[in-house]
Amino acid sequence: MLTLDKVYDAARVLKDNIRKTDLIYAPSLNDKTNIYLKAENLQTTGSFKVRGAYYKISRLSDEQKKRGIIACSAGNHAQGVALSAQKNGIESAIFIPSTAPISKIEATRKYGAKIMLIDGVYDDAYNEAIKYQKETQGEFIHPFDDIDVIAGQGTIALELMEQLSDMEAVIVPIGGGGLISGVAYTIKMLNPKCKVYGVQASGAPSMFESHLKHERLELATVSTFADGTAVKLPGEHTFEICEKYVDDIVTVSEDEIASAVLSLIEKQKLIAEGAGALSVAAAMFDKLPIENKKTVCLVSGGNIDVNILSRVINRGLMKEGRLSDLTVELLDKPGQLRDVSTIIAQSGANVVRVRHNQGGKGMEINECYLSVTLETKNAQHLEEIKKTFIEKGYKISSSF
Amino acid sequence: MLTLDKVYDAARVLKDNIRKTDLIYAPSLNDKTNIYLKAENLQTTGSFKVRGAYYKISRLSDEQKKRGIIACSAGNHAQGVALSAQKNGIESAIFIPSTAPISKIEATRKYGAKIMLIDGVYDDAYNEAIKYQKETQGEFIHPFDDIDVIAGQGTIALELMEQLSDMEAVIVPIGGGGLISGVAYTIKMLNPKCKVYGVQASGAPSMFESHLKHERLELATVSTFADGTAVKLPGEHTFEICEKYVDDIVTVSEDEIASAVLSLIEKQKLIAEGAGALSVAAAMFDKLPIENKKTVCLVSGGNIDVNILSRVINRGLMKEGRLSDLTVELLDKPGQLRDVSTIIAQSGANVVRVRHNQGGKGMEINECYLSVTLETKNAQHLEEIKKTFIEKGYKISSSF
Repeated sequence: MLTLDKVYDAARVLKDNIRKTDLIYAPSLNDKTNIYLKAENLQTTGSFKVRGAYYKISRLSDEQKKRGIIACSAGNHAQGVALSAQKNGIESAIFIPSTAPISKIEATRKYGAKIMLIDGVYDDAYNEAIKYQKETQGEFIHPFDDIDVIAGQGTIALELMEQLSDMEAVIVPIGGGGLISGVAYTIKMLNPKCKVYGVQASGAPSMFESHLKHERLELATVSTFADGTAVKLPGEHTFEICEKYVDDIVTVSEDEIASAVLSLIEKQKLIAEGAGALSVAAAMFDKLPIENKKTVCLVSGGNIDVNILSRVINRGLMKEGRLSDLTVELLDKPGQLRDVSTIIAQSGANVVRVRHNQGGKGMEINECYLSVTLETKNAQHLEEIKKTFIEKGYKISSSF
Repeated sequence: MLTLDKVYDAARVLKDNIRKTDLIYAPSLNDKTNIYLKAENLQTTGSFKVRGAYYKISRLSDEQKKRGIIACSAGNHAQGVALSAQKNGIESAIFIPSTAPISKIEATRKYGAKIMLIDGVYDDAYNEAIKYQKETQGEFIHPFDDIDVIAGQGTIALELMEQLSDMEAVIVPIGGGGLISGVAYTIKMLNPKCKVYGVQASGAPSMFESHLKHERLELATVSTFADGTAVKLPGEHTFEICEKYVDDIVTVSEDEIASAVLSLIEKQKLIAEGAGALSVAAAMFDKLPIENKKTVCLVSGGNIDVNILSRVINRGLMKEGRLSDLTVELLDKPGQLRDVSTIIAQSGANVVRVRHNQGGKGMEINECYLSVTLETKNAQHLEEIKKTFIEKGYKISSSF
């Protein structure tokens, strides 16, 4: 059973083994509220997961430790378990689907784990892990639905109460629900007036839907770039705790998450992964009643592949109207490229890329198109540029 | 004159007005030493500059405050001065060259400064600022060559001595030298055994060269993407203090800086600007005798334009052999694209972009080229792929 004593015990165990992460005031993320960021992306291994994993492992008997531990994960849980096992001097076998990014596999390997790369997706790796567990009798460390793991995540709430004792709301990303369970329970025990809100990606709303219907629902599919929260079925323990202690759960869109990741980079100099930025997205896009409240957004992790990061930055810039694609129809005669360039230069936009498309299926023989990618100030700036083109007799065939 | 009393006084003034930034253990940046990051990129305004600016402004007389303050900067100093003026309730006029990125201008404007956008480069803006100063008799705030400003930056050293009292070396980025002057003086006064090293970009080595020749030298040109340190002439005060208290100064290349920015993103989840990552670049690429030493890398700022950030990430990936361009010569006959794709797929590399170039000036009429951009594991991986192509009879016309 989850108790406050257990959370305090976890804090004692974790004290010298994890980082007490910074709380950063970030008023510019939304000027209608007072946002503080709990930067668990700066935690060892790049996410909060090490808290629960470490505490869980520390509680195993010597006999259990000798048999080793097993986990299945393509992400943060893998690194949390691997590091915790290494620090406790015990062996770990981590089952990872072969489709996981190279960078995450290598990070896990560096913490000394035995990597079991399994062809297929998560479920395939999970099945192999269970088979292996039966053979070795090792200890399977669940990523979220375990009371010790939940108590470990709850230590974040203890730190928050020390760092900002008069906080009024905490916003927490939800995947399986381990993080919010630990945080909500601990806060409601110690400061029941403080609101605790959960956030999920609209493409993976398992706890959101379950909370709405007050029963544990399994989704057929989940799809979001906040991959750390792509969980089809909430945990039993976590669902029960959320029902009791969480004030509300909301969802955010992929574009809103991308925009939050971008804002954290530009305004706060922090890298968050999609899952880590869910809380910030909810606060930025006014999904919750936090006006004028001292609000903590828990930034749960920062393990994002750099190649995906570039795409997310672009998506965020597009959502804010700061990167725009514009396709102008030209007559195929000299001087048109110069005229178009002049209009753009005079508008103050910056050209990033140009594609000239002359002829093709479904086009008139003398038609051609110029597609330009522009850095613009905002959506209104793009509208002004389009208006100028139309006034000068050009036809805009697409823009976004 | 710079005194320890002045630095302590600055710390007292700054206590409630700036952040005491986090010190983050970052062993994976170089396994031969023990690296800690002093995260001044997480400082209010995104850089350390606000420390010096705030302290300087707090020391002005009421008469001086009434006349307002003036600064010239396209970057971190502008934001530091603007916020400090706002907090002190006084007017500021910031002269900015019109070539500065929109994002930096807007950030400065948000802190309530009067923005004076001047056509041209920094020197043009500076000349206008001086003219304006003569008209208004306002107080011109120098970005580095001022004892109060230097004392403000020195407060970082006081925090460090509290956060890691047994540190053995501190590495500090150098532009004009304000930051390192404050830090080196304070550390050598209190803990003379601790080494203090400076780092400059090899494209802007003004303090490095001056230190070498023991005289203040002005460079004809400077060029680096670490734009926060692109200073042609060290300050008088700062040069003198560096001569006395800095143990050594080294330089790092643009590729090394890009690689450091990328490592900070991937391993530490922190955004640093080029200038901010100089210290980390020096530590990563073994430029200094810090083996097995407790070493603090001062990450001075994080204000980097997101568009430049994308390019820096790509440059860093290329330097590490993780993003590669490969051009293969093909015969213009069916099936070649499939064969090339198969070789790449079997190698485990991931195709990011493909360009097919058929015919052109200087090419045989039946020749064509396929250029592919690949995500690879490292430089050796690319070499293996090239070898496979050659073994199968293909000609590699370029790769990098």
